[in-house]
Amino acid sequence: MRSPSVHGARLTRREALLFEAGIKLGGIFHQYLGVPVSSRTAPGLARTIERAVALQPFVVDVRVRIDPSRGGPLGRGRFAYHYLVAEMLDVRVRLGDRGVEVAARLTHRPDLRYPLMSVVAVRTARPRRARATPRRT
Amino acid sequence: MRSPSVHGARLTRREALLFEAGIKLGGIFHQYLGVPVSSRTAPGLARTIERAVALQPFVVDVRVRIDPSRGGPLGRGRFAYHYLVAEMLDVRVRLGDRGVEVAARLTHRPDLRYPLMSVVAVRTARPRRARATPRRT
Amino acid sequence: MRSPSVHGARLTRREALLFEAGIKLGGIFHQYLGVPVSSRTAPGLARTIERAVALQPFVVDVRVRIDPSRGGPLGRGRFAYHYLVAEMLDVRVRLGDRGVEVAARLTHRPDLRYPLMSVVAVRTARPRRARATPRRT
Amino acid sequence: MRSPSVHGARLTRREALLFEAGIKLGGIFHQYLGVPVSSRTAPGLARTIERAVALQPFVVDVRVRIDPSRGGPLGRGRFAYHYLVAEMLDVRVRLGDRGVEVAARLTHRPDLRYPLMSVVAVRTARPRRARATPRRT
Repeated sequence: MRSPSVHGARLTRREALLFEAGIKLGGIFHQYLGVPVSSRTAPGLARTIERAVALQPFVVDVRVRIDPSRGGPLGRGRFAYHYLVAEMLDVRVRLGDRGVEVAARLTHRPDLRYPLMSVVAVRTARPRRARATPRRT
Repeated sequence: MRSPSVHGARLTRREALLFEAGIKLGGIFHQYLGVPVSSRTAPGLARTIERAVALQPFVVDVRVRIDPSRGGPLGRGRFAYHYLVAEMLDVRVRLGDRGVEVAARLTHRPDLRYPLMSVVAVRTARPRRARATPRRT
Repeated sequence: MRSPSVHGARLTRREALLFEAGIKLGGIFHQYLGVPVSSRTAPGLARTIERAVALQPFVVDVRVRIDPSRGGPLGRGRFAYHYLVAEMLDVRVRLGDRGVEVAARLTHRPDLRYPLMSVVAVRTARPRRARATPRRT
Repeated sequence: MRSPSVHGARLTRREALLFEAGIKLGGIFHQYLGVPVSSRTAPGLARTIERAVALQPFVVDVRVRIDPSRGGPLGRGRFAYHYLVAEMLDVRVRLGDRGVEVAARLTHRPDLRYPLMSVVAVRTARPRRARATPRRT
């Protein structure tokens, strides 16, 4: 066993990854709103968020895009920068666990007026071998 | 279905709820750390977090407990209050969608030295009808 | 003096209070953005923020107003709630220390496109005695 | 004056900078607690915080140090990383405005059991001209 399951409920790897994917996106949304950002600092902030998320369990890949121009027109003079708002964020995260992979995304949907978190894809990389492998949960 | 799925992947209700449960717990953890809190204000802060979470999609119930005494010894005089830290938080959330229910919890686990988010239970209120629905896994 | 100064620099009470006022407003802005909020929960969230700020040193009074309608049009159905954004916040805080009082405010200024934090007033309750005290600048 | 004052109260440059210094430190404290961090990612996170603060008005210099080892012992396996806690943070910020400079610091003080924000120094680069300006206390 690599590690015992932390869940009280019996979950498939796929199900556990979906829970974990939600944790990551919910966390990003509620952690970084309000960070001062400009077009010059946005890529560095995005990389820092990526590296933070990559520390978390099951994360295989994470891509963060921050577009400060979506924060509306700038103020002038000393106020000519933005604070991170939901509209600027586009986050794609992939989580994996022994052959199962979940891809999820956080992106602002103008049509819904909402920062939507959704599951983009669930893949079983090697379905036959995964079956053959005894469950280590 | 009451509303079209927001997911690009085909998910069962159970799976979609697990993703949503993760969003809620991840969001709480990353939103409120740092809020000034005392034993006198902790219950009110807990209620406010509950009411905020209850606005989010699929939330059936949420219980937040904040124990400031887990924040270590207090400072003195004007420093005699705490900031919310992970150790103080115990959150239980239940999400539901047409007969399926997911219960999840965020609680600090001293043995793991970690604020653990886990799925406590998954229930199908009307198991026979749920079984009749073909699983889309 | 009731308690020794924490500052390495020599500051008047007035100056120390201005520093503290900035701490409170800066903290509020960066703590609560992203909290789910509706017109129904806004007053309770505002009270909770007030009680948290009131725990902090030198705070005499704090008034928080949250106007969710400034968050733009709502989404529909399960997305019909808001996340706290800067435009919704109006915070007035008063700090006091032995006869000196500072009033500061955080409010979104559409003309500046900026969540402006400013000092509204500085008062010396007992001006003659304050004058008598040698300035420590 | 380069730009009109935003304050309703009459403040000296020195006083206005003290208010601004508080805003920066209060904001940092309440923005970043909870960010996943390890000894490997700590320097990059510190640089990102510096660049964000540097966007804000009047900031001349900012130095952020993050010491994850102050977050207590690590968990094991997939839990072997930290979340940013107050004890890890050491922030020094300098603000300037036309010949006046304020240096402030946020650092955890174990003796006070408190993340202390304090003013380290106030300097007037061109003291004679500053003296010539009547104080508006």
